[in-house]
Amino acid sequence: MQSLSSSCSRSGLSVKSSLIEADGGALVDLVVPESKRGLKISEAEALPKVKLTKIDLEWVHVVSEGWASPLKGFMRENEYLQSLHFNCLRMGDGTLVNMSLPIVLAIDDEVKERIGGSGSVALVGPDGDLVAILSSIEIYKHNKEERIARTWGTTAPGLPYVEEVITPAGNWLIGGDLEVLKPIKYNDGLDHYRLSPQQLRKEFDRRQADAVFAFQLRNPVHNGHALLMNDTRRRLLEMGYKNPILLLHPLGGFTKADDVPLDVRMEQHSKVLEDGILDPETTIVAIFPSPMHYAGPTEVQWHAKARINAGANFYIVGRDPAGMGHPTEKRDLYDPDHGKKVLSMAPGLEKLNILPFRVAAYDTVAKKMAFFDPSRAKDFLFISGTKMRTYARTGENPPDGFMCPGGWDVLVKYYESLQAEDSTLKQTVPA
Amino acid sequence: MQSLSSSCSRSGLSVKSSLIEADGGALVDLVVPESKRGLKISEAEALPKVKLTKIDLEWVHVVSEGWASPLKGFMRENEYLQSLHFNCLRMGDGTLVNMSLPIVLAIDDEVKERIGGSGSVALVGPDGDLVAILSSIEIYKHNKEERIARTWGTTAPGLPYVEEVITPAGNWLIGGDLEVLKPIKYNDGLDHYRLSPQQLRKEFDRRQADAVFAFQLRNPVHNGHALLMNDTRRRLLEMGYKNPILLLHPLGGFTKADDVPLDVRMEQHSKVLEDGILDPETTIVAIFPSPMHYAGPTEVQWHAKARINAGANFYIVGRDPAGMGHPTEKRDLYDPDHGKKVLSMAPGLEKLNILPFRVAAYDTVAKKMAFFDPSRAKDFLFISGTKMRTYARTGENPPDGFMCPGGWDVLVKYYESLQAEDSTLKQTVPA
Repeated sequence: MQSLSSSCSRSGLSVKSSLIEADGGALVDLVVPESKRGLKISEAEALPKVKLTKIDLEWVHVVSEGWASPLKGFMRENEYLQSLHFNCLRMGDGTLVNMSLPIVLAIDDEVKERIGGSGSVALVGPDGDLVAILSSIEIYKHNKEERIARTWGTTAPGLPYVEEVITPAGNWLIGGDLEVLKPIKYNDGLDHYRLSPQQLRKEFDRRQADAVFAFQLRNPVHNGHALLMNDTRRRLLEMGYKNPILLLHPLGGFTKADDVPLDVRMEQHSKVLEDGILDPETTIVAIFPSPMHYAGPTEVQWHAKARINAGANFYIVGRDPAGMGHPTEKRDLYDPDHGKKVLSMAPGLEKLNILPFRVAAYDTVAKKMAFFDPSRAKDFLFISGTKMRTYARTGENPPDGFMCPGGWDVLVKYYESLQAEDSTLKQTVPA
Repeated sequence: MQSLSSSCSRSGLSVKSSLIEADGGALVDLVVPESKRGLKISEAEALPKVKLTKIDLEWVHVVSEGWASPLKGFMRENEYLQSLHFNCLRMGDGTLVNMSLPIVLAIDDEVKERIGGSGSVALVGPDGDLVAILSSIEIYKHNKEERIARTWGTTAPGLPYVEEVITPAGNWLIGGDLEVLKPIKYNDGLDHYRLSPQQLRKEFDRRQADAVFAFQLRNPVHNGHALLMNDTRRRLLEMGYKNPILLLHPLGGFTKADDVPLDVRMEQHSKVLEDGILDPETTIVAIFPSPMHYAGPTEVQWHAKARINAGANFYIVGRDPAGMGHPTEKRDLYDPDHGKKVLSMAPGLEKLNILPFRVAAYDTVAKKMAFFDPSRAKDFLFISGTKMRTYARTGENPPDGFMCPGGWDVLVKYYESLQAEDSTLKQTVPA
């Protein structure tokens, strides 16, 4: 092992353990077994109802499958306060588990009154179907301003999750233990990508992975990303791992309006594997069902923690993870290095092996994406997400070797369809 | 010990240890020994200078005496980020110590440029005297918005510490190891009250205290406070302690303009002891040199942690500790119960015994301050700080038994002096 650890230090990695167990051991699984479903449905029918939004339902999905394990439901006030102030929860045995985002369910005055003294409620999906039971409930105040300030480090208007979820929400939070009546499905043709942490762990076992490295993304994969993932695999092999498996794990919940939608991204990711840019033999593509907060250093902890629960032991983190532009000022909302730094110091994530990104850019001499070489900086072209979207929207081709042609076509078609919609809209709406 | 622990449970206290050691063992003491002073002064004279504000100097005082132990100076970025995101710092051995407020020193562009590549700077007091050396410095960005949002849970204008300290401060923070050239003194006739954590520990030893219970305050002591402190002593005796000592520990640094000034409060506290409301034999009155943030649940952790460093093992916490009204809305800035809850769950404060307040109010039947009895709520009068100040300002006497007459006189005279100043001002300033 000596040679392994020296090779590890050479490549800038510090290996802390083999596969990490989920926080607190066994994963939480909150789906009611089929044998008890009928009984539980009757129980739910008799309870006061709480209607879920689309994004509430995404959280029910996340919690029910154990991504937030050991969390067993929506946070009660003690959990909420610990999450908000400490980004971690203290367990009964005194250990801390990371929990950086408040996972909460909001209700308004009218629903609170309707619940009255009931100890449980039934959760009803946006389509009116009974979804879950929340029991041993606790209702407490939803101080939106404080929640926003402590989660995002700003209260400036224009934060996508705040505008979509928090501002329209009620002034109360309801916590309790969750039991989901049946597995959450979306019936959008992508459910087979939605592997639970338990299913992912089984798949890693089946493939006999001795290292799992996770890549969180909400954007199309270009060859710079691929270079980085392939290089990580190379480094893990160099460190002595025999079968490192990549978990390519696009986020599937709420994203902001100008991000590329999930179905388009999944099609693009497929092309990247078809074109051999990533190796299908050593890659698992699955959807991470969480909604996106765009909360930078606070959210990157959640992204990493959830992947540990799914069996990953290496996490790739880049510049400004989960970040975005400041909604009202001309600057990044977060210092681009804070995500990596905060993640590396976060309580409850001590065992995670963090793989910092090396910056990739388009090498105009080699005509491909390559690790940036500061000694010949002028040869490199940085193509931002905005720039990439502009290329695709205007039909202009990016430089050769930026993205595999199959993947690029998917994006171009998506933007063409947007423009078609747009012009249809313009023709039907009077000026 | 069995009977002790059952008595403890009966009185609602959970006793976790005898006198608690400061975080990380020995207290830091950052005052240069006299033998090296000359040498260090010469060293400081040759360094780039950073001018301190009055409040910066209060922090130098706080850090130099070990109140923030194991912190050895102003925070570098790693400490700042941990404080901001986790309210605690990870030590080399993996343990967490509580550190809820960023203890930082701001500089502006011009000073940063002047420091250039120097590894150390000299800190210069508001009066121009050399105060300290900061070495192995690190300069990093001061994102004021993020600091404010994560510390206060709001960015609303009107937060006293923000307006006084942060808004006018520079856009950089400078961290490093602190060496203070000589003990910080204020020469205001109150320095003998400014006992360091080391001096307090010696005093507790000298008095053979087997329990020290700390009471943080920034207001005059009324008989409700006294009732509570005396009752705590009674409960500690009941629990089996033989010599519980009260640390009456008014905050001596920056406070907001409408709080009663330190000298007036110290005189008032003296009267309370002279009048026998608190027992001088079992009470130590000393000044806690920290500035006040009014940051509620975040700040109460700092208030408790600093007192642990000074040797306290019981901390009395009441309604809305370190709280204030929301600066722009008609409500408390913090949920009045959050301070107590957050304190009880804070990482690094596991060993602290928290003594929750019982609410005291003026009993109009017994004509004294008493614990509120909800079964005869109408007999009780709640006298807020604002109400108390209104009484004192208008010369109206509060109900008999609200405060000892000697203490009340001090307040009345203070408010008379304010009015006298006010009317002098009105006579000299043309209308």
